[in-house]
Amino acid sequence: MATLTDAQRLDWLQLIRSDNVGPRTFGWLLRQYGDARSAIEALPELSRRGGASRAIRIYPRADAEREMAAARKLGVQFIGIREGAYPQRLAEIDDAPPLLAVRGNLAALTRPMIAMVGSRNASAAGLKFAERLARELAEAGFVVASGLARGIDAIAHRASLATGTVAVLAGGHDHIYPEQHIDLLEAILPEGAAISEMPFGWEPRAQDFPRRNRLISGLSLGVVIVEAARRSGSLITARLALEQGREVFAVPGSPIDPRAEGTNGLLKQGATLVTEAADVLAVLEPILGRGTIISAREPDGEPPAPFEPDDRARAQILALLGPTPVTLDDLVRLSTLSPAIVRTVILELELAGRIERHGGGLFLLA
Amino acid sequence: MATLTDAQRLDWLQLIRSDNVGPRTFGWLLRQYGDARSAIEALPELSRRGGASRAIRIYPRADAEREMAAARKLGVQFIGIREGAYPQRLAEIDDAPPLLAVRGNLAALTRPMIAMVGSRNASAAGLKFAERLARELAEAGFVVASGLARGIDAIAHRASLATGTVAVLAGGHDHIYPEQHIDLLEAILPEGAAISEMPFGWEPRAQDFPRRNRLISGLSLGVVIVEAARRSGSLITARLALEQGREVFAVPGSPIDPRAEGTNGLLKQGATLVTEAADVLAVLEPILGRGTIISAREPDGEPPAPFEPDDRARAQILALLGPTPVTLDDLVRLSTLSPAIVRTVILELELAGRIERHGGGLFLLA
Repeated sequence: MATLTDAQRLDWLQLIRSDNVGPRTFGWLLRQYGDARSAIEALPELSRRGGASRAIRIYPRADAEREMAAARKLGVQFIGIREGAYPQRLAEIDDAPPLLAVRGNLAALTRPMIAMVGSRNASAAGLKFAERLARELAEAGFVVASGLARGIDAIAHRASLATGTVAVLAGGHDHIYPEQHIDLLEAILPEGAAISEMPFGWEPRAQDFPRRNRLISGLSLGVVIVEAARRSGSLITARLALEQGREVFAVPGSPIDPRAEGTNGLLKQGATLVTEAADVLAVLEPILGRGTIISAREPDGEPPAPFEPDDRARAQILALLGPTPVTLDDLVRLSTLSPAIVRTVILELELAGRIERHGGGLFLLA
Repeated sequence: MATLTDAQRLDWLQLIRSDNVGPRTFGWLLRQYGDARSAIEALPELSRRGGASRAIRIYPRADAEREMAAARKLGVQFIGIREGAYPQRLAEIDDAPPLLAVRGNLAALTRPMIAMVGSRNASAAGLKFAERLARELAEAGFVVASGLARGIDAIAHRASLATGTVAVLAGGHDHIYPEQHIDLLEAILPEGAAISEMPFGWEPRAQDFPRRNRLISGLSLGVVIVEAARRSGSLITARLALEQGREVFAVPGSPIDPRAEGTNGLLKQGATLVTEAADVLAVLEPILGRGTIISAREPDGEPPAPFEPDDRARAQILALLGPTPVTLDDLVRLSTLSPAIVRTVILELELAGRIERHGGGLFLLA
């Protein structure tokens, strides 16, 4: 575990806030260039080689300094993925945020977490059950992670205030959603924490919530879905949890209650049925003992020397890309180019905004 | 498939109504003596050899004739286990009634059945769901079997009246329980049927309901438990269904509803979760295609010649029996006697009322 200097932290913030740089691209750049400063310096050339129609926008140093200052004023700290305070399980996921803006009690982030999510318009029974379950899981030593939404999220946070609960925000720390839960958030901070990967000043849009949900599941050993209608955000969290190798728990409900359609569906797909905390603990306690896997973020050796693919390689990769997602492995196999060259071409195209990266390492033309 | 003559039917009725003769003992006697008349004639000697304190009571011929006449008057027929009209799946179970008293439309008994049972004090949601499910399963070609109780049972019958539903009684056909459901029973008879293994005039006692429940599950390919509290009769039906190799389905409910404790518990134990008829059909339709296994009732060869074990064998078996149940295999192994001798000693002791037979072929001293 390294500790970032203030200057490095600013570099990281600048890099992750720059155009076309997501968490995975950040990781690639860091591996390729060794540090964020060198990566930032390489961005214009990489993007140009990728065929960008206009110069890539690098987050200005001054803006990064301003964001850092505003954060500090609100008591928010930025934690880098290689630092000790970064939540261990979250660091394992494929698209973990390189920098996490954290407000509150950092100690909460190092304890084992369980996510609890569910309907905003939950039933009285659902709320009562969620409250009991959150309290019992908190008493069993878990930090409860959730999304600060109305309904199940809010009651799960409230029931675990005393022992520590983590709210994951879809916007910046200065844009709490929903506004009515600003008081709840303040009550969370003494023992727990609020975290966000979004910039200060960011007002959450609809598409930011599913993106945020991957952090709720990623932080946790497992996710309990208390009530969920069909096609609800909670089901997105359940799917992300499965993709991340997290346990999925669901609370059963009457088949004629639409708020149970999602959870009953999860149970049919093999989620663990939960009627009491013991059902969750029975699954999680053995996992707790096992510790985490090695973080996928750690470089797997010395950073390779940066090099420039030739135009033939670029043309070959571009020809192989299309509207149907393909994997990096496919591209290597079909082009017969070396993985290092294909990775670099992909990086260039991504920074140029010409390809999109999907979950599971899939790429397609933007 | 044989058809019983009127005289044989009377013999069967006499034998099954005699003291210490249950369905399994009936089967043993029939295999040993070839027909019910010979078995009846052997009863006094067998029971005496088993050490009965007083002469075994054989159901008088006149009583059997009276019961048969009373049954006929109410439109009840007795169907023997080897006859074509006997429900095929029921014939497979270990303790299938040798004679089934049936009222109504015999054709309903030869169609595939699904049992639906649940709480007497069901919730509105439970009743609504049970009604919908029964109607859909009936439309899919299944006869719905249940126990004529208040709540889930009654609504399952009502929803499937038009296509045929089977009520299994815990008492005689002239003692319908609960009395309020006499009208429901009458409505069942045109397309469906009521069945009982109990004598005419038998008023159902508490212990007759669990015994009856094995017939509900035994008739059916599977059992759907709609709502069930902990330690309820519906859970007994579920356990019996498992023992009989039947599918168990359970309808989920809120963890804070005590009427869902039993069904949620079944789901944790591996029952199939049901929120719509398709969940049941997906499991049962492949089984339907497979047909039934060979009836365990069929003799596995020529009936062995009756013979008399010696006193040493009897003493040996008695010494091995105690308050802890043992299997026939244990007794054969530990005594080193032949299975035929052990079976005969057991039969004698059973007819003498000195041992009890439990499910799973277990015996213990009475």
